[in-house]
Amino acid sequence: MKDVASAAGVALKTVSRVVNGEPGVHPATADRVRAAIDRLGYSRNESARVLRRGRTATIGLVIEDVADPFYAGLSRAVESVAAAHGCLLLSGSSSEDPERERELVLTFCARRVDGLIVVPAGEDHSYLRPELDAGTPAVFVDRPPGPGIDVDTVLADNAGGAALATRHLVAHGHSRIAFLGDEPSIFTAARRLHGFRTALGHLYDERLVCMRSPALDTVRAALDRMLALDRPPTAVFTGNGRLTVTALRALAGRRGPAVVGFDDFELSDLLGVTVVAQDPARMGRVAAELLFRRLSGDTGPAEHPVLPVGLVPRGSGELPP
Amino acid sequence: MKDVASAAGVALKTVSRVVNGEPGVHPATADRVRAAIDRLGYSRNESARVLRRGRTATIGLVIEDVADPFYAGLSRAVESVAAAHGCLLLSGSSSEDPERERELVLTFCARRVDGLIVVPAGEDHSYLRPELDAGTPAVFVDRPPGPGIDVDTVLADNAGGAALATRHLVAHGHSRIAFLGDEPSIFTAARRLHGFRTALGHLYDERLVCMRSPALDTVRAALDRMLALDRPPTAVFTGNGRLTVTALRALAGRRGPAVVGFDDFELSDLLGVTVVAQDPARMGRVAAELLFRRLSGDTGPAEHPVLPVGLVPRGSGELPP
Repeated sequence: MKDVASAAGVALKTVSRVVNGEPGVHPATADRVRAAIDRLGYSRNESARVLRRGRTATIGLVIEDVADPFYAGLSRAVESVAAAHGCLLLSGSSSEDPERERELVLTFCARRVDGLIVVPAGEDHSYLRPELDAGTPAVFVDRPPGPGIDVDTVLADNAGGAALATRHLVAHGHSRIAFLGDEPSIFTAARRLHGFRTALGHLYDERLVCMRSPALDTVRAALDRMLALDRPPTAVFTGNGRLTVTALRALAGRRGPAVVGFDDFELSDLLGVTVVAQDPARMGRVAAELLFRRLSGDTGPAEHPVLPVGLVPRGSGELPP
Repeated sequence: MKDVASAAGVALKTVSRVVNGEPGVHPATADRVRAAIDRLGYSRNESARVLRRGRTATIGLVIEDVADPFYAGLSRAVESVAAAHGCLLLSGSSSEDPERERELVLTFCARRVDGLIVVPAGEDHSYLRPELDAGTPAVFVDRPPGPGIDVDTVLADNAGGAALATRHLVAHGHSRIAFLGDEPSIFTAARRLHGFRTALGHLYDERLVCMRSPALDTVRAALDRMLALDRPPTAVFTGNGRLTVTALRALAGRRGPAVVGFDDFELSDLLGVTVVAQDPARMGRVAAELLFRRLSGDTGPAEHPVLPVGLVPRGSGELPP
C-alpha cells in the first residue's frame, strides 16, 4: 500500500479509503490510486489473506533438473507468477529419484510452504495425503501423481505429439522409423511411445525402439545396432530434448536418417531440426496460476488441462528415406 | 544419525557413542559406523551447529535468469552443495534489475536464510551491510559487489579469457576483429571488453565494437553496419553465450566472418563454434563451498578466487580472413 500511495502521490490513508470503498476521496484521485494499483499489481485480497491465515508467501517447486533447459524455462515461469503474487520460490531438483522427490516435498511442507508444484519422479504419492488433507494445495506438472491423489495436473499432449511426429515422417515416405525414448517408467516417455506405436500401426517394429535415459554411449550403441539391421530405419523420432541432442551428436558426420525430436531446444533452428514443440514456460505459468487460484479459495474439483504441442518443420524431418 | 544407524546396521546409541568418542563400541563396529558416516556425508558439527544457533538450513540464491543455461548450471551446482549440507535453496532471478536484486536479497534475509549467494545486477550493495554485520555471510559470484562491501567473491578470468580469444583470432591472421558485448554497465561485459582492447592494441577500432544486450535485431543491425564498412571485420568475438547464439542466428546463411564466443553452450560442438569456456557448475560449487565454510565458522579475510577459462577450438575461430 505504501508503494501505491507513493506511486499515486497520495497519503496512505487515501489508498486505504479507495481500497475499502470508503467515502471522502475525490473521483480523480481515486482513479489515480486505482491506476497505480493496476500498475503495481497490488491485490488487497491476496495481501490480506496472507496476513489473515498466517501464510508464509512461499511456494515449493520440485523439478527433475534445473540444468535441463526444459525445466529451467518452466521454473522461470513459475517464479514470475509467484513474484507477481509476492511469493518466493523454494526449489529443488529430484534427479529422477523418487526418494529425493519425497524428501524435497516433505521438507518444503515442514517449512510450511503455502502450496506445491511438483514434477514427480516417483509413482507413489501417498506421503502427500496428510499435507493435502491439511489444506496445502499441490499441482502436478508434466507428469501426473500416483494413484489415489486427486490434485490438479498440467500435462502436455504427449501421445498426440508423438503421433503427430510419426505421421509426419510416414507422410514423407518413411516406413522404418526408430524411436529413442527415455526410461519407460517415466510417464511422458511411456505416453510418447504409446503415441508413436499407435500412429505406426502395423509398421511398428520393436527392434527399432530403445527406451533408455539419454547417455551418448547408449544412444550411439542403439543407433549402431538399428542401422546395422537388414532393414535399417530411415528416420528417427527422439523422445525428448536431451535425446534429440544426444542422437544428433551420435549421428554427426553420418549421412543420416531423417530426425524429428519431441521438445524444442536452443539452436534447433540453426541446426535445421524438425521438432514437436511444447511450451515449458506456458506449462509453468498455467500450473502456477492454477495453484494461486487454489490459494485464493477455489475449491472446485481438480482440473486437468492438457497443453497442445505443435510440429515445427525445419528440414531434418522432411528428408526422404 | 538415524540414517547412519540404519546404514551401519547398529543402534542409534552406538552411532552417538562413535560420534562423541565414547567407549564401549567394538572397533570393527566403530569402523562400520564411520564408513556409513562417510558414505552419507553426515557431519556432526554441521547438524549440531544448525540446532545450536537456530539456523533455518536455507540459503538464498539470486541469479540473473534461471532460464539462461549459464545460470541454470550454476544454480544446479549450488543446489547440490546445499543438499549435501542438508540445506534448501530459496532462489530468484533479478533480470538485470538492481531493484529486483535488492528486493530478493532483503526478502531472503527477512526469511532468515543462513547465507546468501548473489549474482548482482546492481552496483550499490550498501543495503546488505546490516545483514552482513548481523552475521549472515554472503558470497558474490560472477560479478563483484559495489564499493565498501568486503565479502567473498568467485569470478572468472574475464579479461584473460577475452585476451585469449582475441590473440587466437590474431594468430589466425585477423586484424579486423569485431566485439559484440553486453551492456558495459555489466561487470563481466566491461572486463571482457578490456581484455579484448588490451590484446588488440593498435588494431583496436571502436567502430567494430557494440555493447548492447543480446537481441536479434540489435545484433543483426550492428553486424550489418560493421560488415558494410570499407574495411569490414573478418572475425567476430562475442561476449557471452546469448550473444554468440544471437550472432550465429544473425549470420546464418552468410559466408561468415570467423567467430569465437565467450562461454560454451549446448550444441556448440555440433555447430563447430570455437569458444572460451568457463565452467558455471564449478563456479557455483566453489561459491557454495565457500559459503558453507563461512557457515561452519571460518572468519578469515574475504577470499577472491578467480576461475580459469580455456579456449576450445572447433572450427569457427580458425577460419582465415
